[in-house]
Order: sequence, then structure tokens, then C-alpha cells
Amino acid sequence: MFTELIRPRFLETDALGHINNNTYGVWFESARDPIFHIFMPKVDVKKWNLVMAHSSFDFLKEVFWGKEVIVKTAISKIGNSSLELCHAVYQDGKLCTTGKCVLIHYNFETKESIRIPDNIREELEKHLFTISWFTSLNELEEYIKSSKN
Amino acid sequence: MFTELIRPRFLETDALGHINNNTYGVWFESARDPIFHIFMPKVDVKKWNLVMAHSSFDFLKEVFWGKEVIVKTAISKIGNSSLELCHAVYQDGKLCTTGKCVLIHYNFETKESIRIPDNIREELEKHLFTISWFTSLNELEEYIKSSKN
Amino acid sequence: MFTELIRPRFLETDALGHINNNTYGVWFESARDPIFHIFMPKVDVKKWNLVMAHSSFDFLKEVFWGKEVIVKTAISKIGNSSLELCHAVYQDGKLCTTGKCVLIHYNFETKESIRIPDNIREELEKHLFTISWFTSLNELEEYIKSSKN
Amino acid sequence: MFTELIRPRFLETDALGHINNNTYGVWFESARDPIFHIFMPKVDVKKWNLVMAHSSFDFLKEVFWGKEVIVKTAISKIGNSSLELCHAVYQDGKLCTTGKCVLIHYNFETKESIRIPDNIREELEKHLFTISWFTSLNELEEYIKSSKN
Repeated sequence: MFTELIRPRFLETDALGHINNNTYGVWFESARDPIFHIFMPKVDVKKWNLVMAHSSFDFLKEVFWGKEVIVKTAISKIGNSSLELCHAVYQDGKLCTTGKCVLIHYNFETKESIRIPDNIREELEKHLFTISWFTSLNELEEYIKSSKN
Repeated sequence: MFTELIRPRFLETDALGHINNNTYGVWFESARDPIFHIFMPKVDVKKWNLVMAHSSFDFLKEVFWGKEVIVKTAISKIGNSSLELCHAVYQDGKLCTTGKCVLIHYNFETKESIRIPDNIREELEKHLFTISWFTSLNELEEYIKSSKN
Repeated sequence: MFTELIRPRFLETDALGHINNNTYGVWFESARDPIFHIFMPKVDVKKWNLVMAHSSFDFLKEVFWGKEVIVKTAISKIGNSSLELCHAVYQDGKLCTTGKCVLIHYNFETKESIRIPDNIREELEKHLFTISWFTSLNELEEYIKSSKN
Repeated sequence: MFTELIRPRFLETDALGHINNNTYGVWFESARDPIFHIFMPKVDVKKWNLVMAHSSFDFLKEVFWGKEVIVKTAISKIGNSSLELCHAVYQDGKLCTTGKCVLIHYNFETKESIRIPDNIREELEKHLFTISWFTSLNELEEYIKSSKN
């Protein structure tokens, strides 16, 4: 599982006083950086090989400016050429937003999906996490700790 | 059905040369303005009464800067206190992105969902559209025209 | 002078209840589209030939969601290879924000500035406007009308 | 002087392959958080007491996704009720973008500027920095170190 600490930005709030819904996709994109690096160890936008096919969001609790947020990212499914990721936003230790997305390993020149190679697949499998998100960050951390033992 | 013409903004592109995935939620939010106005005829952020519970996106074709985009928005379900909307982005007459979202009629003070009143429900029902999006904008327009006769 | 009508987007507000300061640069970028088209009649990002060297903003009055905004754009100076633009945001007929920017006619391959060719210069000169913005949109419109006669 | 480490986000790039100009204002806003906290020790958006009057940007070198960025922020002038800040973006140790902004200590209810109180003024004076930005981050760090001795 990947962990990213994010300090909400003031412009990410809206006139309702909380973080605007469109922000979570931005945070999740940022939280996927380690996944991008598994597929593209050398950063080179011209060799980009992932494309998003689907994304979804569930908004459970409001998030506010002024307190850090923890974004947890895990891999929930590994297909032939596709990958399902799940994301969770915690603030004050509580689950606020969850998200999923499907990425396709893709050749932008031939416009075709490509099988995920075995070495990448092995790396990805280390981050598989197939249970539901805990509503409490503490419980999630406990679970992760215990499952490592 | 609601129609919004959008000119993609240059900052909405990313280094892959196309419109970034996070943009579609922004366009759909803008395209929901007429729905907001059904619930809040006088614009007053302090009396806001809708909250988003869920959203999802399917990315079918890339969208590019330099050509206008048509965003179509319809209502796909009306529940007791909730509402499901569906959105579609067309560029060059072709379906590029679809999205759905669930809005809850909500009292921000009591933190409770509220039944959608009958007068609003009647207004919403005029925009019900329960079939799948056509991949061609022409076919969609033909269908809408024929279903009005 | 160029005129663009913009409907503020809800995510462009922030928790202070008004349009966030970072939004005006986005609107001005969009309002520069006709200038881009003078330099690049065929839209082709790979042949992009303008780079921004400087921008500035003066925030005079708050802007709010729920009412359309008029963005006026004019050319204030034409140099050898550079161009100064000025922008103004009007809401409810009143001047709310002004901005300036300096664009350089630029070759991205050789990384050098290029003299603005005469045919482009002639086109640009039609949009020269060197007086200060009027605080009232009506007065600006009157002035433009009278100066055309 | 304040230092913030920022990992550019992919959506902050544009089709020219670099970070879009509108991004720097967003980073600078984030980098001003410690200044906001001097004025508002307890985070409470309802007691917000700063308003931006002016901002400007100079774009010296392109910034790219895939490498961290250092944003340096200092106070360049302290007036009666106003404050001038200066910002600099460094990537790969080189100065890429600079910015300035003027903030006004402000009462949102009475719509009036307020004198900056002495205790805040003293705190702000610790961060005064009135020389020009060094084009090399190393030289800036050396200068800061030497001026502390």
C-alpha cells in the first residue's frame, strides 16, 4: 500500500467551505506516482504507457482546509493488460472519500493495449489489497501491521 | 436533456497532449448548473441543498484542445431524496467520455437528506433519459427530435 | 478588443465565498485564444510559437459564482518580438480585476525569440488599446462605440 | 525565509509538455500557509483577515513534471496594513519562476484595511529578505547560511 501526505490547498476549497469534489481525482492522480514509476522507471512523458479507462468516487465525509490528509493507494485487481487501483482519503483519522480507477497498459503509437509483463506484475502484486477500507485510519494501520507479521 | 457548449482551456490539457482526465468532472459540474437552478431558483450559496454522494467516469476517446465540445446532461433516476444524472462529452460529433453522479437533496444544518418536493420532482421528470448514450452526436440529436414528436 | 463571456464555475470559488484569485489567470488564458489564432491560424500544438514572460494581476473587487462575467482583452504594446496584452474582468457592469501579460514570439526548437512578422503585426494593431480600463462596463462600451465613429 | 517542497502534479502540465503558467500562483498560495498562520494562529476560515491586492509572475525557465521543486518565500516589504511577499521556484537547483504579491490586513465585515499589529509585525520582520533571488539555489542557500552567522 502506498501512503501520501497531502496539505489541502486553499483554492481546492469551494464556497460551501469544504474541499471541492473535483479535488479528489487530482490527489489520487498524485498518489499514483509510485505506480507510474513501476511502469516507467525513468521519467519520460514520451514513453508514457498507461491510460485510464474508468474512475469512480464515493464521497462519505467532508474534507476541510487547514489539516493534513492521508491518501492511501492500493492495487485491487491485476488483469491481463489492466489494473484496478483503490484510493482512500483520511482526515482526522476518519475515512472521508474512496475512489477506484482502471488503468490500461497501452501503446500510444499502435493504440493497442499490451499485456502487463511478468516483472512488472510481480512488483504490482506486492501492493495487492482486496478488503474494504476501514472507516478508521488507526484500524487500517493495525490491520496492515498485523498482516505483515 | 441539457446541452452545454464548452471551449476546452489550454491548461486543461496535460503533457500527453490531450485533455486531462480530471477536467471532465469540472465540465460536468458546470453542466449541472441548470439542475442546481431547479433546486435553488435564487442563487444563494448559503441555501445550498445538494450534496454529491458518488460519481463515475468512463474514458472512451481522447479529447483535444482547439475544438469545441458538447456536454449533454440528463436525469437517469429520481429517488426519494436522491437523483442520478448522466453526462456525455462529444467532440467532432463522437462520444468521448461519459459520467454519472448521484446527488442527495440535503439539509446542511441538520445534516440530513430531505425528500425531493413534488414541484421539483415534476420539473426534473421532464429531463428523464434512460437509454444509453449514442456514440454519434447526430444519432443522439435524431433520437431526441423523433422522441419529441 | 476581444470580448469573452464566462460563466464562473463552482470549483473556481473558495471557502471565502468568492472566486479564488488563481482563477483569473485561467480566464485570461482562455480569453487569449483569438490572439493565439492570429499567430497560429491552424491549431497545432506542435507548432506553438508564443511563450509567456510575465504576468500581473490587480484585484479590485470580489467576483462571485452565479452571475456571468465579461472578460475584455486588448493589446497594449507591440514590440519587436514581444506583445503586451491587458485584460479586464467585469461583473454586474463593474471592473473587478485587471491583468497584463507579456508574450514572446518564440521558436521552441532553437529556443530563440523571433521578430513578429509584418502581416501578424498589422492584424495585431487593429486591437491596440492604450488607455486605462473604465471602472464601468457601460462607459467602456460607450468609449469603444464612439472611437469607431 | 520559508521553504516548501512540491512534487509537480501531472495535471499541472499542459500540451506544451511543461508546467502550465497558471500553476505557479497555486504553488505560491500553498507556500503562503506559514504567513497565513502568523495572522491566524487558529485555522478558522470565518476569521480570515488577509486579502490579495496584487500579484505578478516572471517566467524564466520551464518547469517539468517528474522532479521536485523548491518554493522559497520571503517578506520583501511590511507597510502599515500591507505586506509584500516574494516567491521563487527552483528546479534542478536553478531559478525558474519568481513572483510577488501584496496582501492587505483586512476586516471582511467592515470592508476596511487594518493596521498590522506590533506582535505580528515583529514575527513578520524575522522573514524580511530584500535582495534579488539568486539564479542558483546553492548560492541562495550559501547566502542564507552566511547571513545567519
